[in-house]
Amino acid sequence: MENFIHSIPTKVYFGKGQISHLDEALRQYGTKVLLVYGGGSIKKTGLYDEIMKILSEGGFTVTELAGVEPNPRIESVEKGVRLCRENGIEVVLAVGGGSTIDCSKAICSGYYYEGDDLWYMVKNVPGPKKSLPLVDILTISATGSDFDGGGVITNLKTHEKLGAFFTHPSVSILDPSYTFTVSKYQTAAGSADIMSHTMECYFSSPGDSGLTEGLSETILKTVIRYTPVALKTPDDYTARANLMHAESIACSGILAYGKKYSGWPCHAMEHELSAYYDITHGVGLAILTPRWMRFVLRNDPSTEWRFVRFAKNVWGIEGEDDHGLALKGIDALEDFFRSCGIPMSLSELGIGTEHFADMAAHADVGGRLTNAWVPLTKEDVEEIFRDCL
Amino acid sequence: MENFIHSIPTKVYFGKGQISHLDEALRQYGTKVLLVYGGGSIKKTGLYDEIMKILSEGGFTVTELAGVEPNPRIESVEKGVRLCRENGIEVVLAVGGGSTIDCSKAICSGYYYEGDDLWYMVKNVPGPKKSLPLVDILTISATGSDFDGGGVITNLKTHEKLGAFFTHPSVSILDPSYTFTVSKYQTAAGSADIMSHTMECYFSSPGDSGLTEGLSETILKTVIRYTPVALKTPDDYTARANLMHAESIACSGILAYGKKYSGWPCHAMEHELSAYYDITHGVGLAILTPRWMRFVLRNDPSTEWRFVRFAKNVWGIEGEDDHGLALKGIDALEDFFRSCGIPMSLSELGIGTEHFADMAAHADVGGRLTNAWVPLTKEDVEEIFRDCL
Repeated sequence: MENFIHSIPTKVYFGKGQISHLDEALRQYGTKVLLVYGGGSIKKTGLYDEIMKILSEGGFTVTELAGVEPNPRIESVEKGVRLCRENGIEVVLAVGGGSTIDCSKAICSGYYYEGDDLWYMVKNVPGPKKSLPLVDILTISATGSDFDGGGVITNLKTHEKLGAFFTHPSVSILDPSYTFTVSKYQTAAGSADIMSHTMECYFSSPGDSGLTEGLSETILKTVIRYTPVALKTPDDYTARANLMHAESIACSGILAYGKKYSGWPCHAMEHELSAYYDITHGVGLAILTPRWMRFVLRNDPSTEWRFVRFAKNVWGIEGEDDHGLALKGIDALEDFFRSCGIPMSLSELGIGTEHFADMAAHADVGGRLTNAWVPLTKEDVEEIFRDCL
Repeated sequence: MENFIHSIPTKVYFGKGQISHLDEALRQYGTKVLLVYGGGSIKKTGLYDEIMKILSEGGFTVTELAGVEPNPRIESVEKGVRLCRENGIEVVLAVGGGSTIDCSKAICSGYYYEGDDLWYMVKNVPGPKKSLPLVDILTISATGSDFDGGGVITNLKTHEKLGAFFTHPSVSILDPSYTFTVSKYQTAAGSADIMSHTMECYFSSPGDSGLTEGLSETILKTVIRYTPVALKTPDDYTARANLMHAESIACSGILAYGKKYSGWPCHAMEHELSAYYDITHGVGLAILTPRWMRFVLRNDPSTEWRFVRFAKNVWGIEGEDDHGLALKGIDALEDFFRSCGIPMSLSELGIGTEHFADMAAHADVGGRLTNAWVPLTKEDVEEIFRDCL
């Protein structure tokens, strides 16, 4: 069992109506608020009006940053930092999914960054020492950005999409009923994202952290059980609540406690797919993961025990033949994603082989593939991409 | 699924050699330290010398409060607060188990308490607003006081033993190797304590929080797997690490997320046993829990599904007959405690029926029995005590 450090200062209000805590959550830091959101779905659902009513009644001064992109860009971060400085912002309120919260985290850290180049901060400053406080209201169960300190920011000029540590939210309001309106496609992609975060930790060494291993299996079983319910009955509170509870833990680092860093190889490969084709992150992960698993299993037979455990403990598959079990577990994962309506091949998304070599050559950002649980070369990555066609 | 609030600001350094972070953990708050410990076992193991070397080399000024009792008394809290005030203490360092950490939490809160009567604070002040920062080094896996904000303080003059919320530790150093020297008896009692914390949450309504339910089962299975290993091979790092990881979560509140308050009835009944007979808390819990379970099952058949789940998911018992399964799960728990060397009856501890009526009459402190998952009357409590003979 490896050493670890646990440090998650975020206070979470989880459940129906927890927006009643919004006023006190913001007020402890001040009354000048930057409200950050994305494409405007919160205006359609009425959440925007509900928030503005609370802020207005509370006497808060609100500056808005709307239109944060699904893959948030450095220009949005720059704009947010400028708005904070010009308006003496005391606290940032992010309302949306991972992109909006990621962008807001970078804004909070960027506010105190003394250099001129915020992209330099994203690339080179590990864990800024000081950040503006961030409060968020989550509207989709997927990334776990509400309970971790990291964010992914894109620079279209340099063709880079990079993850960095900024700051943990101070307060996260997680009301599962806000996800009732999430589409079937985005619900399925979100669940694939949650499962991917979990599996990126689960498939690593060693295997002697009983609590971590069991918690990972519990999260996977929870998502497998409740995603079909949410797809069939979008306003099933129990299903949406279980998915939201799962997403908050899956990316928090807790599933890596006692284990070695796994490299998160599927994420590294998916970032290339998203960067070249702008596909939905969770869909890219769903397509890649079973193919990555089969590649690992056939190239490193010493990993078989882990896939056997996955088949038994996550999917409840029984049998005597370990290799057969291992393969059946991977098949079960692929079948599950397909049953959720996720297109499970790159060709279904209109993606061919044309950029595979370039994407494979770029994928090893920060040594995430060479230092992975089972290290991957660029030839390996190309092979996995081809398996996804 | 019920609403919940997650708020655990404690930073945990988990693993071998994490004492290397002690200097920085303290120094962020100051250099004037109150060192709190118990009966002196840390002097026998060498941990005291290791700590004093770090504090001396770091130029810290150390005031000592030694001899904190296994059931920490209000007089120790009063003495600690006096020492802090007289010596301008900036941070409290607790080294030991739950009793030492509980006492230290009350000292940290008591420091800022403006009244004269610290027992009044324990009884009547819910969550003091301000506390001195607390750093702890854990030496036994049992109470989880390193990762929660509560403490239990005893007042011998008024014959009261009360739990209260004081403050979360700011930093906890959890090095499993410090538990290598814990005796077999205390190791077993500690595991019973961890399991009891978990079961007090698990046996409550509703049952639709997938993550919480699964995490509870994982903790129970982890303790069941690794306690016998630690008893047989006290310096087995993996076993000690798994027990320590489990104890930190079991009492943190995380296992109650999404569930109704259960009342923690076994704890309420055990506090009476400890108060009258000064027995080891974990041993009292181990004796009470299976008897409480059988009482609940025979008096409220609607609870059967939960005991069936316990038998299947925790103990791996299969079968068609639900009632038989439920009973077998409870038997498995009792057999497990016995196999760990815990005396599993009150008569083995020399306890007879003489105080049962009085103990039963006092047990419902704060409505913990009348508001329990399955409410208990004082007659019920007497019956459970008699079943423990």
